[in-house]
Amino acid sequence: MAAASFTNPQEAEQAFYEAFQRADLDALMAVWAEDEEVYCVHPGGPRLTGLDSIRESFRRLFRGGSSMRFQLRGAQQMRGGLLAVHSVYEYITLVGERRPASAVIATNVYVNVGGGWRMLAHHGSAVAGSEAQPPAEAASPGMLH
Amino acid sequence: MAAASFTNPQEAEQAFYEAFQRADLDALMAVWAEDEEVYCVHPGGPRLTGLDSIRESFRRLFRGGSSMRFQLRGAQQMRGGLLAVHSVYEYITLVGERRPASAVIATNVYVNVGGGWRMLAHHGSAVAGSEAQPPAEAASPGMLH
Repeated sequence: MAAASFTNPQEAEQAFYEAFQRADLDALMAVWAEDEEVYCVHPGGPRLTGLDSIRESFRRLFRGGSSMRFQLRGAQQMRGGLLAVHSVYEYITLVGERRPASAVIATNVYVNVGGGWRMLAHHGSAVAGSEAQPPAEAASPGMLH
Repeated sequence: MAAASFTNPQEAEQAFYEAFQRADLDALMAVWAEDEEVYCVHPGGPRLTGLDSIRESFRRLFRGGSSMRFQLRGAQQMRGGLLAVHSVYEYITLVGERRPASAVIATNVYVNVGGGWRMLAHHGSAVAGSEAQPPAEAASPGMLH
């Protein structure tokens, strides 16, 4: 797949979660910057640095096919020159279930490379306890945004 | 305490962990940017946004006094204009223990404000399993760096 180009960090973020939801490994990897320092932390996991480690982790995660639906809520965005940092709550509903099974808070870092934005880091961590349900206004399942 | 000023993100990071280790709430809070969007995720916790929420969380954490020693390892640093993103492993030894009790992977975001660097975000998540011990070359306890 040709390298994707995103005109702003929001587009890159949307492409990342859409590919995640479809379990589309090539589309997901096309969002990442081609940079040695890219890293990904899955909830409870170590830091995976480099595209090869990241690809392998998602390949395993996607082995069973598309199984997760994301509701993204509470986005905060900061931009300063060539880097952008987003944080967002991911409420994850397993296919066949009606309510989110878990909540993850993610810090996503994007970099501007040659005029386009790509993902530089994804750090997710599970939120324990009562925070694992989305706020009331986010009750409809299946929406990405 | 007057607002601190740090000439680069590394200095701000060192001040953050030194204050954390000393359980010095004022020194720790002086590292943060005065920005509504500052946020902190403690391992397993929700996102705490704003200085008041962050201060309250550390006030509780520090209630028992200085109890943690940090060994920082595997730092990765990315800078793009007015933002800098560091990721680092924190190996945390409780006072009185000889070996780290836990490993946390942290994403720390710094912002340049008026020529000085301050912390904009701290996202920590516990690393499960075998990754909870520092690499062999990091075996000496009590060192911050």
